[in-house]
Amino acid sequence: MTTCDVIVVGAGISGLSAAKLLHEKGLDVLVLEARDRVGGRTCTAYGEGFGYCDVGGSYVGPTQNRLLRLSKELGIETYKMYDKGQYTFLTGGRPTQYKPLPTSWNPFKTMDLLHMLRLIDEYGSKIPADAPWDCPHAAEWDSMTMKEFWEKHCWTKAAHTFGDLIVESFVTAKSHQVSMLWFLWYIKQCGGFDRCCSTVNGGQERKFLGGSQQISLRMQELLGDRVKLNSPVVRVEQGQDGVTLYTGTQDSFQARYVVFSIPVPLQLKVTFDPPLPTPRYQLIQRVPMGSVLKIMVYYERPFWREKGYSGLIIIEEEDAPVCFTYDDTKPDGSYPCIIGFCPADKAIHFSQLPEEERKMLICKSYAKAFGTEEALKPTAYVEKNWMQEEYSGGCYTTYFPPGVLTNFGKVLREPFGRIYFAGTETATQWSGYMEGAVQAGERAARETLHAMGRIPADQIWQEEPESKECPALPFESTFWQRNSPSVGGFLKLLGLTPVLAAAGVGAFVFKKSNL
Amino acid sequence: MTTCDVIVVGAGISGLSAAKLLHEKGLDVLVLEARDRVGGRTCTAYGEGFGYCDVGGSYVGPTQNRLLRLSKELGIETYKMYDKGQYTFLTGGRPTQYKPLPTSWNPFKTMDLLHMLRLIDEYGSKIPADAPWDCPHAAEWDSMTMKEFWEKHCWTKAAHTFGDLIVESFVTAKSHQVSMLWFLWYIKQCGGFDRCCSTVNGGQERKFLGGSQQISLRMQELLGDRVKLNSPVVRVEQGQDGVTLYTGTQDSFQARYVVFSIPVPLQLKVTFDPPLPTPRYQLIQRVPMGSVLKIMVYYERPFWREKGYSGLIIIEEEDAPVCFTYDDTKPDGSYPCIIGFCPADKAIHFSQLPEEERKMLICKSYAKAFGTEEALKPTAYVEKNWMQEEYSGGCYTTYFPPGVLTNFGKVLREPFGRIYFAGTETATQWSGYMEGAVQAGERAARETLHAMGRIPADQIWQEEPESKECPALPFESTFWQRNSPSVGGFLKLLGLTPVLAAAGVGAFVFKKSNL
Repeated sequence: MTTCDVIVVGAGISGLSAAKLLHEKGLDVLVLEARDRVGGRTCTAYGEGFGYCDVGGSYVGPTQNRLLRLSKELGIETYKMYDKGQYTFLTGGRPTQYKPLPTSWNPFKTMDLLHMLRLIDEYGSKIPADAPWDCPHAAEWDSMTMKEFWEKHCWTKAAHTFGDLIVESFVTAKSHQVSMLWFLWYIKQCGGFDRCCSTVNGGQERKFLGGSQQISLRMQELLGDRVKLNSPVVRVEQGQDGVTLYTGTQDSFQARYVVFSIPVPLQLKVTFDPPLPTPRYQLIQRVPMGSVLKIMVYYERPFWREKGYSGLIIIEEEDAPVCFTYDDTKPDGSYPCIIGFCPADKAIHFSQLPEEERKMLICKSYAKAFGTEEALKPTAYVEKNWMQEEYSGGCYTTYFPPGVLTNFGKVLREPFGRIYFAGTETATQWSGYMEGAVQAGERAARETLHAMGRIPADQIWQEEPESKECPALPFESTFWQRNSPSVGGFLKLLGLTPVLAAAGVGAFVFKKSNL
Repeated sequence: MTTCDVIVVGAGISGLSAAKLLHEKGLDVLVLEARDRVGGRTCTAYGEGFGYCDVGGSYVGPTQNRLLRLSKELGIETYKMYDKGQYTFLTGGRPTQYKPLPTSWNPFKTMDLLHMLRLIDEYGSKIPADAPWDCPHAAEWDSMTMKEFWEKHCWTKAAHTFGDLIVESFVTAKSHQVSMLWFLWYIKQCGGFDRCCSTVNGGQERKFLGGSQQISLRMQELLGDRVKLNSPVVRVEQGQDGVTLYTGTQDSFQARYVVFSIPVPLQLKVTFDPPLPTPRYQLIQRVPMGSVLKIMVYYERPFWREKGYSGLIIIEEEDAPVCFTYDDTKPDGSYPCIIGFCPADKAIHFSQLPEEERKMLICKSYAKAFGTEEALKPTAYVEKNWMQEEYSGGCYTTYFPPGVLTNFGKVLREPFGRIYFAGTETATQWSGYMEGAVQAGERAARETLHAMGRIPADQIWQEEPESKECPALPFESTFWQRNSPSVGGFLKLLGLTPVLAAAGVGAFVFKKSNL
């Protein structure tokens, strides 16, 4: 039986970051990975017609300093996403061009949208990133869904629909499925709405040249045969002096400490002796992985660029599988590509169709958005259904239905005996992203170092210096973005306030009129 | 390697019902059970000071005809719950007596409560018990939580709070955690609110003499060594001709067909090859088991009976672990007992306390409810934390957060190759109860019979004749129960309708006044 200092379960970016840190501190580590590959929710595919492409987590940007430091150290370069030209908004069968936010000929819609986006950050400012359950409104906000948030604050149907699309796109679940507290926390811990959703200066600013899976592959190289593939852990026994782990392949391994770095709901796959504490066993049944397909469509030419479009499309059409896209052409201009995301209910529904049918529907919506039949003639097509990966269970991350974060959030990274928990879901900054994976992995590694008496408690959590190559800039907002009132506030401004009853009736009619 | 016609996974009532039916048809069956006992979520404890007691599923009543038939065949008698005397409602620190429904000195509260209870059944009448996703309002109702239902329909705080308590008590989760469509379906498929919640003529009318686990124990006897304990299935491989199952104890078994009869989220514990279809793999991450402790407090004398109380208490107090109770004295008068349920968030919270502290808080609330210090002096105390049972994951049943039933409900009992699905969650009548377990088990068994060409498709689902010993009676309702308007409707009746704006303002003020 192999014995070592720390066994890490899961060879995604988080687990490997933990193992790398411990290995560099001179500890004897072992990584057990269920799959036949490292990388977890990052995976780079290779093939004729597209070279390589990230079919999983892919983007990096300012404030993701741990990921930037790690990738730089591993010798992996980044490049900026293409962001020239106009964005496209396809709704009601008609494409419109915009930048940076969709506006409408109807000033109420624009006002409503700006106000709603501002509210997301205003609410977020009251939620502690490291302890959302301590928010003064935690109980109330966790008992509501994001659908209730939109219903409460949006006056126009356009803003509500756009809000729904934001939730689907950001967390691959519907507004009515996610806790309001959790979603607002999620955006907050990414640095706010702009930082989270932007290409320039935001979470999608850059990609890794050669693909994001390299990060894990190079850490695997560093660790050598300390990474064991095809070794799903099925049983964990904790004793006085250490932990014994059993794999489905009948091997067993011993360690003083364990770092668990697998998706939260998949902890159900493991039997623990002694059993998991009640709250954790309830938690892991309550936080499902999101639903998403990631789809790359390749073309002869980047025809959208020629028309002055950036390739970013937001699609609000029921029969379109994809909700939003980016230009995914390689930085040298080769393999012109539109990358699209099919999240939440759409993922469930459209994943049931034959690939050819799905592909056709996607190309049709691109043709409508770009106004050209060229979009109907792809040269290559790559898709990845993350729901089918047994050891991911879905992507991008777990989501929290109402009532779970306040009851069980604290448990997420609470150690259980000699077991510490990593994984992007346990992070306090960019949780759900590769950056969160690194933060969580390194923190869990330092928790074991502290348990072994090697570092004091106040060194477990560490700040990360800002990347020099990719610094964060402030976001410039217009006067209108900062100050546009809610539609309700605007009506009051118009002097209707005194006539309270009339305003009530007016507002009711207004709200029902499906603006 | 053992080969048989059908392997049943899980030796709860559902799995054993399936195995029994197939065994009686002359088929070669095998039951693999993870635990060292049969019974699943039913379990009978034995001990000095209480004789025996059901620490899990326990009740049976009219319309639960399959369970009544099965238990009778197995020679297990039922007895009626004690239901003499008044019920007790403890709220705001003060106990009041009532029967059958709590009323208030405030007619608005009573009107609101009656109207709200009637609405549950009115909505339910529009939901097909066997296909709630086909309800014309399915999408809308599944995007709302029960909290939103109460908010929409209750005018008084009292009714809303009572509604929350109904949800907690019936499904061991909070109003804001469960889909409105799912909860209304749940009550509907039990036969409506009265049938579901009543002792006399309802789901809690009777108990089994000697305990409910006998049902499983006697089926185990019938099946002999065809039931293998301590055999958790961890891997299932399907081929052209059959299925191979592997247990954590390294045994493997072959069968032509499989009936899976384990709690839905615990299907995550099994690796399937080929993998589960996308919708099922998403479903099983999305339907957690409820949270509950079941607590039996034994006394020297049934002092509450002497005071004219039935022993049923509804408790609306934050510091009381238990939400509702029944008299659980044995039918011969021995072992006077109050049985209590600590569900949902309370289960999480109070299960973290030391047993002695929990016991004291419970006895204190009983003392307050019954108005006597005798309640502080129990002679025995038995409790069961179902969240700690690895192979139950919680009790009573899975709950559906918003957005899950419409997307994945159909998948619940959709066969996967040679695998059919039993378990109470897959039932269409009394799902969540022992009755649903029997219905589901026998239906799944007949699905395999049909697959083997032994019965036609139209014999898979079978009606059950009514029990002669325990027939269902209609519920008598008062004129007031049938016809009491909503508070809003009543205000209109008072002639306020024409003054629309004023009514709007009035209603708003009224609603906010925390009646």
